[in-house]
Amino acid sequence: MNDAFDTADHRHAQRMARKKIVIDDKKAAATQARGVVVLHTGCGKGKSTAAFGVLARALGHGQTAAVVQFVKSRADTGEALFFRDHPRVHWHVMGAGFTWETQDPTRDAAAARAAWEQAVHYLSDDTLDLLILDEITYAFKYGWLDAPEVIAALHARPPMQHVLLTGRAAPPALIAAADTVSDIALVKHAFQAGVPAMPGLEF
Amino acid sequence: MNDAFDTADHRHAQRMARKKIVIDDKKAAATQARGVVVLHTGCGKGKSTAAFGVLARALGHGQTAAVVQFVKSRADTGEALFFRDHPRVHWHVMGAGFTWETQDPTRDAAAARAAWEQAVHYLSDDTLDLLILDEITYAFKYGWLDAPEVIAALHARPPMQHVLLTGRAAPPALIAAADTVSDIALVKHAFQAGVPAMPGLEF
Repeated sequence: MNDAFDTADHRHAQRMARKKIVIDDKKAAATQARGVVVLHTGCGKGKSTAAFGVLARALGHGQTAAVVQFVKSRADTGEALFFRDHPRVHWHVMGAGFTWETQDPTRDAAAARAAWEQAVHYLSDDTLDLLILDEITYAFKYGWLDAPEVIAALHARPPMQHVLLTGRAAPPALIAAADTVSDIALVKHAFQAGVPAMPGLEF
Repeated sequence: MNDAFDTADHRHAQRMARKKIVIDDKKAAATQARGVVVLHTGCGKGKSTAAFGVLARALGHGQTAAVVQFVKSRADTGEALFFRDHPRVHWHVMGAGFTWETQDPTRDAAAARAAWEQAVHYLSDDTLDLLILDEITYAFKYGWLDAPEVIAALHARPPMQHVLLTGRAAPPALIAAADTVSDIALVKHAFQAGVPAMPGLEF
């Protein structure tokens, strides 16, 4: 080890020591352990998959969880096949399918309302650690659900319960009401280059 | 049902029928089933969690997968506890911890190189369906790995293998080489409001 490397090493150590102080201070200030409302929105890939990753984490820590899918109508997705028989997971595929497939707004609206009734049940269950409302934002877009009604129910939920909502174009009021919001931008997708939805990756 | 509603219903049906044609055409054009390189980057929450959601999906479809964690040094995260004993998962916690915690760049660099050697092993294994290189981008930032070396290995991998890379500030060459890229922006995080990292949500 020569002197130049020692000096670079030393500078790195000083920089990292300063960074550690800043991060440790922030950690010390974060003391309000409580349930968190997380929202994954945007047009990129990863909104629902990140929810399922959180589900795996929660189950890894022994928590109980429920998933209500507002749009998907298939029970043979990889996520459903993997999670639905887990003893601490309640899995509900409540959607009627994409609205351009059903072409039946009355049926779509009824499916969304039924999914919301299922969600309301869990939002008053203080034994549930994590509730995932997958693709719920589409229900706002089409007017099947009102954001104020959903936000009121989120506020009234058990204080340690985490709720994770996904879907494109979340209404501003929902973004304001959430504690953690990620906006997942589509930089590019293999589908645009002619690759079909691949099992495991996309469903 | 009155006439006004009938008309709105009819317009909805026409709009959805047009949308279905556009989407069906795109689906018909997507015929190149092959392995896909997916990259989750950006500063928001969801990069690694979306990778673990994809892992659940892949396992749900009976696929085999490997995970190499380039930074994390803990084997007691929710994701590790949940997935590591699954018979079709190979789980490798290879990191030395955050560089501001270790304050030892020589050790960090050696850990990153060892993680990459593990990754290279899987990149030549055509029985592996999915490889997750979690937080690999930090190795580029600190100069522990060269992007061209990694990109060359991605190009030479088995043609049906999916690879998913995560981490902030991905180098432009890696973004160019990936098939699907999501940029996950931090809109807000509960940590900023004083909520500590919660088990199940953050680890």
